[in-house]
Amino acid sequence: MKIVDTSKSRYAKLEGFGINKIGIADNFWAPKIEVNRRISLPHQYRECERTGRVDNFRVAAGIKKGKFKGIYFNDSDVHKLMEGVSLDLAVKDSPIRKLLEDFISLAAKTQQTSGYLNTYFMINKEKIWKHLVWGHEIYTAGHMIQAAVAHHRVTGKDNYLNIARKWADGASEYFGPGKHRGTCGHPEAEMALIELYRETGDKKYFNLAKFFLEERGKKPFLFNGDTDLQDHLPIREQKTMVGHAVRQLYLCSGEADYCAETGDKKMLAALKRQWDNFVNSKMYLTGGAGSNYSHESFEEAYQLPNRAYAETCASIASFMWNWRMFLLEANAKYTDLMETVMYNGILSGMSLNGKRYFYANPLEHKAKGPLKAATVQAVGGNQRTSKHWDGTACCPPNAARFFGYFRGSIYSRAKTKPGLFINFYAAGTSKLNIAGTPVEVTQKTNYPWEEKIVISVNPVIPSKFTVSVRIPGWVKNAKCSVNGKLIKARAGIYLSLNKEWKKDDKIELLFPMPVERIKSNELVTSNAGCAALKRGPLVYCIESADFENINLFDVVLPKNAKFTTEYRPSMLKGVTVIKGNALLKKGKQGLYSTAGQENYKKIKFTAIPYFAWANRKPGMMRVWIPTT
Amino acid sequence: MKIVDTSKSRYAKLEGFGINKIGIADNFWAPKIEVNRRISLPHQYRECERTGRVDNFRVAAGIKKGKFKGIYFNDSDVHKLMEGVSLDLAVKDSPIRKLLEDFISLAAKTQQTSGYLNTYFMINKEKIWKHLVWGHEIYTAGHMIQAAVAHHRVTGKDNYLNIARKWADGASEYFGPGKHRGTCGHPEAEMALIELYRETGDKKYFNLAKFFLEERGKKPFLFNGDTDLQDHLPIREQKTMVGHAVRQLYLCSGEADYCAETGDKKMLAALKRQWDNFVNSKMYLTGGAGSNYSHESFEEAYQLPNRAYAETCASIASFMWNWRMFLLEANAKYTDLMETVMYNGILSGMSLNGKRYFYANPLEHKAKGPLKAATVQAVGGNQRTSKHWDGTACCPPNAARFFGYFRGSIYSRAKTKPGLFINFYAAGTSKLNIAGTPVEVTQKTNYPWEEKIVISVNPVIPSKFTVSVRIPGWVKNAKCSVNGKLIKARAGIYLSLNKEWKKDDKIELLFPMPVERIKSNELVTSNAGCAALKRGPLVYCIESADFENINLFDVVLPKNAKFTTEYRPSMLKGVTVIKGNALLKKGKQGLYSTAGQENYKKIKFTAIPYFAWANRKPGMMRVWIPTT
Repeated sequence: MKIVDTSKSRYAKLEGFGINKIGIADNFWAPKIEVNRRISLPHQYRECERTGRVDNFRVAAGIKKGKFKGIYFNDSDVHKLMEGVSLDLAVKDSPIRKLLEDFISLAAKTQQTSGYLNTYFMINKEKIWKHLVWGHEIYTAGHMIQAAVAHHRVTGKDNYLNIARKWADGASEYFGPGKHRGTCGHPEAEMALIELYRETGDKKYFNLAKFFLEERGKKPFLFNGDTDLQDHLPIREQKTMVGHAVRQLYLCSGEADYCAETGDKKMLAALKRQWDNFVNSKMYLTGGAGSNYSHESFEEAYQLPNRAYAETCASIASFMWNWRMFLLEANAKYTDLMETVMYNGILSGMSLNGKRYFYANPLEHKAKGPLKAATVQAVGGNQRTSKHWDGTACCPPNAARFFGYFRGSIYSRAKTKPGLFINFYAAGTSKLNIAGTPVEVTQKTNYPWEEKIVISVNPVIPSKFTVSVRIPGWVKNAKCSVNGKLIKARAGIYLSLNKEWKKDDKIELLFPMPVERIKSNELVTSNAGCAALKRGPLVYCIESADFENINLFDVVLPKNAKFTTEYRPSMLKGVTVIKGNALLKKGKQGLYSTAGQENYKKIKFTAIPYFAWANRKPGMMRVWIPTT
Repeated sequence: MKIVDTSKSRYAKLEGFGINKIGIADNFWAPKIEVNRRISLPHQYRECERTGRVDNFRVAAGIKKGKFKGIYFNDSDVHKLMEGVSLDLAVKDSPIRKLLEDFISLAAKTQQTSGYLNTYFMINKEKIWKHLVWGHEIYTAGHMIQAAVAHHRVTGKDNYLNIARKWADGASEYFGPGKHRGTCGHPEAEMALIELYRETGDKKYFNLAKFFLEERGKKPFLFNGDTDLQDHLPIREQKTMVGHAVRQLYLCSGEADYCAETGDKKMLAALKRQWDNFVNSKMYLTGGAGSNYSHESFEEAYQLPNRAYAETCASIASFMWNWRMFLLEANAKYTDLMETVMYNGILSGMSLNGKRYFYANPLEHKAKGPLKAATVQAVGGNQRTSKHWDGTACCPPNAARFFGYFRGSIYSRAKTKPGLFINFYAAGTSKLNIAGTPVEVTQKTNYPWEEKIVISVNPVIPSKFTVSVRIPGWVKNAKCSVNGKLIKARAGIYLSLNKEWKKDDKIELLFPMPVERIKSNELVTSNAGCAALKRGPLVYCIESADFENINLFDVVLPKNAKFTTEYRPSMLKGVTVIKGNALLKKGKQGLYSTAGQENYKKIKFTAIPYFAWANRKPGMMRVWIPTT
């Protein structure tokens, strides 16, 4: 029940554990996972029904009369949701377990004998495989395959998997060297097909993924060499993160899977170049990706307006890519990035009540009142919405499946020598297996609110292996001890603890969490003269709800401001806030005016974790705050 | 030879003078006008030939065989260029006078008997009037009409005007109440048709303009209520500046012309609302318009990234709109804006050598090396280019015709009582006529480099009238004297000097020009913590060419920096530079890092007028500079 199964991937250094083995019983993630299970997934299914997404299958199957409803890629949302339900079932029963099985039966009835399955193209009798640039046919199937693989791994049933295989068999007959050229305008299916290969052992699916990957940027161009579609260069020659952010990041995920199977050096080098380009010049502090809110796309280096796009799907795609890179390379920089994006850029996309979502995740919001739903979806706004389902709803089910991905990435296992990697911190007990020895690993911590983590490593019999503990890159002066013995710990690496582990061995970690002022590179002119506040892995923001009758954009942070922190259990389902003194500019000002002596008034301020904004009354928000 | 003839417009308070009456003999504008006449206009004509823009007319006329070349709105560039040549002829002979006449003969041969004339639609046998949203058919004709009116006014010949009338007659038969619905996706023809009405007296053309104006935003929507096309609301109900910036500003120009004829109160109120919205929240310091570089469009309020679009055409369109608003209302706020945009947002679009142009006019540029021409055109870059003509080339001929517009707007005349308005400052002698009395007006000044302006007002006989002198809004402590007698002068108004004017009466103006630090409203987060330098009407910038081996984005302006200025006659064809001390951040930094004590090194810096950037070796540039 791995989320990505690299157990047989020759070039991957690590593999994950089955998600059913990993226990989460903390105060941070466990309640969110429960909200997702109890509220979000059933709510999303109802929305799929309300908006005709399931009916489209019924109509295409001939069970119901009607027209295609919604947008041509709407099938993908249902499959993605079903992946979320499947992953959920690995751990606990789902209120919509039966609806999952009903949907699979329906999808089986809808599928054509050729294996083709896409209700938009079927109902509207559009020519298939002819509109690859926008049609999302392969993309939609990619989501179906991922759902089917998850369902198979979790339930052992092959009904969904057979649908996926039949589709991929059909597609393999049509596409390929010497057959038809083509790849999807929107990458996604590449990683799905490689996972299908891993699940079934059928190399044909891997070959199809390879074909789809290599068609991109190949002359004569399929998509006019369009940068927005990553068609400008063959993938092994690509240098930077460009174009539509979700497409680019899903593409990178598929490439990373390909590298895990093949060890392709040129492709891996391209991925590393692109990763550096992303992290050093195109990523928001929250881990968000995609600056251009008109095209949902990457901009040139350092162009990171706080107006931002930073789509929730792009953050999840980044998480997925970095997990694959980590499995390949076992480098802490990838899990560091995953931590950044999950606590900030991904969780910000979901409301605390489990029913509302952001598509865009801006780092500032200026409008005071609520925005119209359409605006919120398109350009980011100050209210998450459940209206996504009336239009494009890629983000909500992506968020829903993310919780399974998170669970599956907390630990990993070295493949060549006995070793456990502890990637993320959340209280709970997991039943893992290291080189044949069952090991119970228990984390006791109130991370990310508190600095201390105690990990018990309990093998059933004493056993020699390495426990690699991630010391996050943001930590200064980390402390680590094993059974009370202090061990030197550098930040941004995996600390290797190699010994014979015995019952009740304890690793104690202390990651000091002072409030930190972050600055950005001067080339990010949108943050010139500004600082952001971070504590531990969390990016903070200020929000109107904590400032009575104050224009947040008149707030200035004094250079030597002192901060205190306080955990507030009843605020925003429990968050640690940052408190301090700030300055408030007095007086009205025009768009441009002569600079002069500013008049300030002292005010108290409270900052909240960025992910929790927009859960109270609508207002302004900002992450980057001007400093004196 | 007025550029906009409001002499018979009932609701306009002012009218312009014929451009042949206005003399410019200064060191600033006169050389630029001469470059335009001698170099730019002939160069642009050659580019029109090279890229098939003229051949398209020959092919459509059946004189030459071939296909349509280029983009469907390419005819408009030729007409716009011909308008520039015509305006030029009012003052001095043009090296391409004959080519203008040849082109008019060619256009006459090309025109269909119905009056229709658009080489793209004719050569490709596209259905006409069916693609109004993108086809630019009416827009292209609008440019033809403006050129024809200018040609008629300047030369007295009616060959071009007849083509324009024949087109407008045909269009009037097709479009109108009870006939076909329609208006152009790209407004422009509205103001052209009203000018054609003013030139010919034929009300039909005015009615067609009215029809085109009122079709916008009328239900059922012609353009799906698209905000980008200003189709979201009937024009009298529009509230803000939205969508494609050039379209919005041309539309406003047409509306202002309509108001001058009709006094339509609701439309005027809408224009004033939109003007306030523009000036208070959507205009760059340079006067530039349009923040969104993907869509060339306005963004929401205060979203003014320095990456900017700020198309040269939008700046010219803003100049055109504000001239019309000024003729309507005689309010200095409009001429103040014209001064801002002409010295900064318009001139920045042209190279000093007269052959290269910017499409976008960003307020910062980060890349060190030269950018590819395509990038420069599409997103702004650090080099103006002459390659526009291979693609969209709306800006170069717009810039070419701008010099005539500028000349025509230096003075204006009150319509109801004897009065002269002095709007802009440039040395030269003009032969004006105030209430029947010939008045020679001579300006002696080295504006905008120097603070002093001496104006001689010489009526042939002593004559009582008001001279209204614009005291720019940026001036602090303006001094004004008439024949040595000091008169109190407030900034941002027209100072009314009412007396009997006699030979050699002298107005002396002193507009102190200290270097000013400008800040922007805190809601413009892209300028948070930054200041810009201005002197007089000019916005300044720093450019790599003046900084050896320095990353401009590491430069910080100390809070109490002192500045000096110096006129350098051989630099950039003569500019006043600002000199001072700045700080340079030391040390490399990542994308995000912990804020701490910054290390600075003192450096000297030189700032140049923004309009003159990108005329030396390629490099970085920025207008807004972080301050300590």
